[in-house]
Amino acid sequence: MTFDEIVRTRRSIRKFVADKTPPRELVDAVVQAGLEAPTGRNRQSSAIIRIDDKDLQSRIRKLNAEIMGPPPPGRLPDPFYLAPVILLVVANAAADTAVYDGSLAMGNMMLKAHELGLASCWIHRAREEMETPLGKEILERAGLEGEWIGVGHLALGYADMELPAPHPVREGRYRSI
Amino acid sequence: MTFDEIVRTRRSIRKFVADKTPPRELVDAVVQAGLEAPTGRNRQSSAIIRIDDKDLQSRIRKLNAEIMGPPPPGRLPDPFYLAPVILLVVANAAADTAVYDGSLAMGNMMLKAHELGLASCWIHRAREEMETPLGKEILERAGLEGEWIGVGHLALGYADMELPAPHPVREGRYRSI
Repeated sequence: MTFDEIVRTRRSIRKFVADKTPPRELVDAVVQAGLEAPTGRNRQSSAIIRIDDKDLQSRIRKLNAEIMGPPPPGRLPDPFYLAPVILLVVANAAADTAVYDGSLAMGNMMLKAHELGLASCWIHRAREEMETPLGKEILERAGLEGEWIGVGHLALGYADMELPAPHPVREGRYRSI
Repeated sequence: MTFDEIVRTRRSIRKFVADKTPPRELVDAVVQAGLEAPTGRNRQSSAIIRIDDKDLQSRIRKLNAEIMGPPPPGRLPDPFYLAPVILLVVANAAADTAVYDGSLAMGNMMLKAHELGLASCWIHRAREEMETPLGKEILERAGLEGEWIGVGHLALGYADMELPAPHPVREGRYRSI
């Protein structure tokens, strides 16, 4: 796929094959694209935590659901849509570009996932999650010291649906003055 | 270039050929990639304003320099490094994903610019700028109503230097637990 094709045809996927985990090398390639995203003054303030521990995954899914409140009608109670892989992007609070840096890592990962034929979706509430005791536990287990901001989770896996058509870009979002 | 090559070899450029403006179709292609970035719940909360008016550009450069304070030693007083094109990304404050959405637009634009052989750099202080009277004037001239958050500026043009080698990714930014 060309860059334009990757950008244009990528869609957020909210239905995953729960028991089909992508090979580690594909997950690593997705993460690598995230790590290579630009960061303010090259401080490389973002870090990516792959949540392998299934029990920890469950606790994250549960906490995220609690922060979210009742899901929209027709949505699964799991805010990660049963995705088998959860990547958590955090960014060092000492960097004033932390949220921007982490977002660019998320963006690169979504694009790379799509190029590799994987499905992904940005799952929010990482900021709130990282302010809870579970967030502190995650940082400690990951060996990340200091203050970190939760930027986003990437739910990753294989789509259990056809890839939807691209969203049309709404008129009026490009202005010149 | 493959996606990996684009991601890996892109660098922020801080030295532009001041009087060499990229053709409009290249600038538009960069903007298009930004508009096609994902947005929370597809609200398409981001908008991209191309600042063509040279007088307005000067005022933005001057205000940005004031917000920044004295430049680092050896840096130009213009925080945009004389880049001929300034793209301003704003995001609708009504969307709780505004900053993330705008950041993803910035990310796609930096990647697309690099694929096209253009140089770019994310220039910050857009948030502060949009809270000033000049920011309000920009929104009014652009015809954007309501509350908007400044996310970033993209300085865009041709590099007046060799492309630097990629930054090595620092160890320890990828963890698994």
